[in-house]
Amino acid sequence: MAAESKSRAGGLRLWRNARLATMAESSAGLGIVEQGAIAARDGRIVYAGPEAELPSTLAQGAETVDCEGRWITPGLIDCHTHLVHAGNRANEFEMRLAGASYEEVARAGGGIVSSVKSLRAASEDDLVTQSLPRLDALIAEGATTIEIKSGYGLDLENEKKSLRAARQLGEKRPVTIRTTFLGAHALPPEARGDKDAFIDLVAKEILPAVAAEGLADAVDGFCEGIAFSPDQMARVFDAAKAAGLPVKLHADQLSNLHGAELAARYGALSADHLEYTDEAGAVAMAKAGTVATILPGAYYFIRETKKPPIGLFRQHGVKMAVATDNNPGTSPLTSLLMTMNMAATLFGLTVDECLAGVTREAARALGLLGETGTLEVGKSADLAIWDIERPAELVYRMGFNPLHARIWRGQ
Amino acid sequence: MAAESKSRAGGLRLWRNARLATMAESSAGLGIVEQGAIAARDGRIVYAGPEAELPSTLAQGAETVDCEGRWITPGLIDCHTHLVHAGNRANEFEMRLAGASYEEVARAGGGIVSSVKSLRAASEDDLVTQSLPRLDALIAEGATTIEIKSGYGLDLENEKKSLRAARQLGEKRPVTIRTTFLGAHALPPEARGDKDAFIDLVAKEILPAVAAEGLADAVDGFCEGIAFSPDQMARVFDAAKAAGLPVKLHADQLSNLHGAELAARYGALSADHLEYTDEAGAVAMAKAGTVATILPGAYYFIRETKKPPIGLFRQHGVKMAVATDNNPGTSPLTSLLMTMNMAATLFGLTVDECLAGVTREAARALGLLGETGTLEVGKSADLAIWDIERPAELVYRMGFNPLHARIWRGQ
Ligand SMILES: [Zn+2]
Ligand SMILES: [Zn+2]
Repeated sequence: MAAESKSRAGGLRLWRNARLATMAESSAGLGIVEQGAIAARDGRIVYAGPEAELPSTLAQGAETVDCEGRWITPGLIDCHTHLVHAGNRANEFEMRLAGASYEEVARAGGGIVSSVKSLRAASEDDLVTQSLPRLDALIAEGATTIEIKSGYGLDLENEKKSLRAARQLGEKRPVTIRTTFLGAHALPPEARGDKDAFIDLVAKEILPAVAAEGLADAVDGFCEGIAFSPDQMARVFDAAKAAGLPVKLHADQLSNLHGAELAARYGALSADHLEYTDEAGAVAMAKAGTVATILPGAYYFIRETKKPPIGLFRQHGVKMAVATDNNPGTSPLTSLLMTMNMAATLFGLTVDECLAGVTREAARALGLLGETGTLEVGKSADLAIWDIERPAELVYRMGFNPLHARIWRGQ
Repeated sequence: MAAESKSRAGGLRLWRNARLATMAESSAGLGIVEQGAIAARDGRIVYAGPEAELPSTLAQGAETVDCEGRWITPGLIDCHTHLVHAGNRANEFEMRLAGASYEEVARAGGGIVSSVKSLRAASEDDLVTQSLPRLDALIAEGATTIEIKSGYGLDLENEKKSLRAARQLGEKRPVTIRTTFLGAHALPPEARGDKDAFIDLVAKEILPAVAAEGLADAVDGFCEGIAFSPDQMARVFDAAKAAGLPVKLHADQLSNLHGAELAARYGALSADHLEYTDEAGAVAMAKAGTVATILPGAYYFIRETKKPPIGLFRQHGVKMAVATDNNPGTSPLTSLLMTMNMAATLFGLTVDECLAGVTREAARALGLLGETGTLEVGKSADLAIWDIERPAELVYRMGFNPLHARIWRGQ
């Protein structure tokens, strides 16, 4: 029956009797349409606006869903995750709560090296199996696009394995996966402390090979005292440019190494974390069009007290995305709804900023704004339909999922 | 088939091949049994311990579940909620993020009076319908016992309506509901600022009528500058004692009015919030056996900075429960898992304290420790079965629900 009506409709689907938060940039606030409808043909939005103005050619013969007044937003986008990882670090969390110091945790085999060890020991299929429940948690809250970084492999084979596992996830579920190569995430044990030699390996061997196989959509790095210097990151970014890949950066999370400016200089899609970014960094990002990706889960989980300079970002017109940073060490978070609540509660983002942060601006941070992130003609019909009375409920509630239905590419 | 095997077993059920966190007080830590089994007859635990020591009489003929090595904890208990309420206050949340002051929110009809207005306008069935999704969110994470307070009615009919709605929730779902009369929650508009007259009404008319109808299992109040004084609360507690009901108290949340000591003096089951409680309060609670109910959701949501004195509670042996405080104004939180994460992350509770806080100590805070809260012979077979490798994962993860199955009274 469904198939028959679908073929009869030539792939035309219609969601009517809905309230839309289109998130269109041309509109004020959330781009609200109170009595709205969305039509999609072959997975692309062909109409999004007042139901009263829906062209009759789109109303006739479409497979139609009565939304009964529910709200529709763009499908949510998590634009910063380390979702493909093996094991978890609940044991370290437990040790720290019981009073262990970071040194004691490290001596017990903890820290990022434990994630590297676990990932290297896991097969690609293991990684997929372990990561699927996390992916499913995000999807269950309406996510339709998810970025996944490598960075626990730290050698060619294991970085490739991570990225292939991420691609596999996108085949196993109806969701768009964007992969990011994060070879410059941490120093592996076999590098024996030689950061420059490892950066050479990343920039000259691993990155080009990963790029040649088409495994990565972007390149990221961790610019921090405990990770890599701006000069080292610049060498990785040069290699990314040479390979034709856009860049992003974990910048200014724990100290101000002027990572935001480095990212802007390379025209990065986004700079992420940014707790210690200063005004010069914000100005540079605004000029370059680099999105500020706000990651309140990590801020909360590590008990950071310095907040990213939201006021400066607003003042200088830096766009802000909001993401989970899902990772086993500093943000074991798999809820974009809770992430929005944290962005509002901890950093004072408004409801409109939070919702834009997990839709339009997250799409921009992935270089996908032409494809998804708003309810506008020509984009993929990626929708989240919610059992709520007002969009603010998506940010206000904690631990409650009001998703009614999720549509990815029109289905 | 299932029914046949059940009748054949005479109501005997067995969960084997499990790892148990019994939470038994006589055991250290979580009371872990690595290769464990639980047997229940007619909904009561008749065995909980090593599978190797399971009496053969319990193994034979039982309806048996192979837990495949999963962890079993006691069913979770949320011992402090205002889950029965009408509407939500997402609009106020949005206004405050957009820069409105508390005065502006109040002038726009916000604050607790807006919840009172909504509740009074709702029918009992409306209340049930609106509250069920919140209850279901808690149940979906393994909750088997939930306390629900009145306190938005603030007159006889509306307080009774709230408590009846709470009782109805317990009939609609397989869960134990405990009701608490919270008439002394706030001053209703018709009291025109006369707190003493309203306390008279609560203590002399509403409370005795509610008690006479058996609608409340306990009596609570809000002792705070913006609510009622210790003297006023004492009059309510005297009435509770006269009606044979145990008491609890919202104490020392925003200032130190010595609510903890007041609660202890009345042998309260619990004193709740306690951010401003001092050492004398902790000592008094320890002596009286009054449980400290920690509510990190409200602390987080209202951006409180003063933490409850966890160190003093440990030092003096005060038992600590952990609860959601689910309410529309200051804690729109419906996840005990996220609540545990907040208790650990924000207040430094250990994993063991968090898990005890939503099981054994929550049962104690409800006067139900003889009935539920641990996996021990004689108690209700209220179980949560988890897809985890170690109990710490229940506290560590954010926005992820690893519940495999939930058993209430053996089913
Ligand atoms: Zn990250
Ligand atoms: Zn409360």
